[in-house]
Amino acid sequence: MDTIQKMLLEQVADLHAIPEGAYNIRTNGESTARNSTEHIEIVSKSEVSGIDIKIKPGTKNESVHIPVVLSQSGMEEMVYNDFYIGDDCDVTIIAGCGIHNEGDSDSRHDGIHRFFIGRNAHVKYIEKHYGSGDGRGGRIMNPQTEVELGEGSLAEMEMVQIKGVDSTVRTTKASLSEGAKLVVTERLMTHGEQKAESQFDVNLDGEDSSANIISRAVARDRSVQIFKSVINGNAKCSGHTECDAIIMDNANISAIPEITANNPDAALIHEAAIGKIAGEQIIKLMTLGLTEKEAEEEIVNGFLK
Amino acid sequence: MDTIQKMLLEQVADLHAIPEGAYNIRTNGESTARNSTEHIEIVSKSEVSGIDIKIKPGTKNESVHIPVVLSQSGMEEMVYNDFYIGDDCDVTIIAGCGIHNEGDSDSRHDGIHRFFIGRNAHVKYIEKHYGSGDGRGGRIMNPQTEVELGEGSLAEMEMVQIKGVDSTVRTTKASLSEGAKLVVTERLMTHGEQKAESQFDVNLDGEDSSANIISRAVARDRSVQIFKSVINGNAKCSGHTECDAIIMDNANISAIPEITANNPDAALIHEAAIGKIAGEQIIKLMTLGLTEKEAEEEIVNGFLK
Repeated sequence: MDTIQKMLLEQVADLHAIPEGAYNIRTNGESTARNSTEHIEIVSKSEVSGIDIKIKPGTKNESVHIPVVLSQSGMEEMVYNDFYIGDDCDVTIIAGCGIHNEGDSDSRHDGIHRFFIGRNAHVKYIEKHYGSGDGRGGRIMNPQTEVELGEGSLAEMEMVQIKGVDSTVRTTKASLSEGAKLVVTERLMTHGEQKAESQFDVNLDGEDSSANIISRAVARDRSVQIFKSVINGNAKCSGHTECDAIIMDNANISAIPEITANNPDAALIHEAAIGKIAGEQIIKLMTLGLTEKEAEEEIVNGFLK
Repeated sequence: MDTIQKMLLEQVADLHAIPEGAYNIRTNGESTARNSTEHIEIVSKSEVSGIDIKIKPGTKNESVHIPVVLSQSGMEEMVYNDFYIGDDCDVTIIAGCGIHNEGDSDSRHDGIHRFFIGRNAHVKYIEKHYGSGDGRGGRIMNPQTEVELGEGSLAEMEMVQIKGVDSTVRTTKASLSEGAKLVVTERLMTHGEQKAESQFDVNLDGEDSSANIISRAVARDRSVQIFKSVINGNAKCSGHTECDAIIMDNANISAIPEITANNPDAALIHEAAIGKIAGEQIIKLMTLGLTEKEAEEEIVNGFLK
């Protein structure tokens, strides 16, 4: 693994060395390192590109790292990863994709992740996307995430697009059984001419299921962002979606949440706010000795933390 | 004017007698009474059904009543009313439509209202829709409202669908110049098998323009409601949209607001909440001697007031 690949790995998975536990590292379209454990088995798919991650019921306090790095310009791939998480598990999954493109051709990673979460299981999922390189070729990532939450299960998903991704269409679909809970935190920053679209579709099917979708976004320069979030309350349930966005320079941001109550015991709320950084916040930091630019940076970093 | 027509007039325009000021009363497709005043001229359109209402600049504290009643089953009409409101006016416009249908055929009123509001003018607009009658024929109303707000003008619009309207598609479009302000309060109740769709499209084009769209809705029985609200911030402006809905019985409600900032100085917010009446609210009123049904009624009336 070369220096660039190591840098990408650090950005998307905070990895400085081979991780503990189960892992699969994918580099330029190939599985370059893999480890299964007693409780977590990683197997290549035979028909399509991608892996099955099978986690035995009752597996606790274990983690799976499945980072992807692309450093070869012009590389395009479509990867299918399926996660089978047994009943009563408590596991952490760290995914993420880094693209370094120094060439003129687009590099593109489309990842389709499906999660089948067993009863009373608890999954923490962290996904980071990052792009770098000076090439004119685009760095494109289209993650599709599908989550089926079993009875009483909990999925906490943290999805972050740090910087450098030119174009992304992110779709996340979830269906929740009785007592299941989904918490999604999305943080997105776009700059330059970047485009980002994020769409959530959540079906609260089971009694006492709940979802909380929180998005924080910063759009700079001439970048364009669209946030869509659909929550359907099909049972006694509670759903909340929230989008806070900072607009800067000549950027465009749209927020389009949609809540539908198909059951009289569904309680649904959404909120969204788009605005620029308040002038007094900047002035306050400038009185502490920061330049205007540094003050802005400080506020944006705090907002996305 | 017969008893039913008088009842409709009372419901939609709070009129017990011929109103003061300018008015046009439309009954079963005909202008049955009209009065212009020194400052407010009402003229029939020649090409299509409808009227032009011309209000001279500087007209203050005057009102226009333009109620519509339909009591003949199977009657369908499309009416175009244009309001030309001069600079510096301060006027109240009371519209409204009542349909009484005792027959088997649908009765339908489509009203297209256009407002051209002059500089620094202040317009208060009140529109009530009401249906009655035991016929199997539908009572259908599709109001289309278009508003152009001149510099520094203010439009306060109160739009109410009281009861008895089987099907409605309500669209309201507005564009705002510099310093203009739009405040819309919509109150909607559906019951039985009724369907209601309400769509707002607001363009905040002028610097320091602002819009506040507030919707309160109650859906009972098996009725279906969709609320859509689009606010585009195209300049330094502020926009707020809010939808609060009570769901009862087997009703369905969707809220789909959309805010788009096309300018870094646009500040946009939306909020929506759908839920049923809180149990403790009902119990509180029941301890005061109300039955459960009366308590519900009390809460719904308060919510829609």
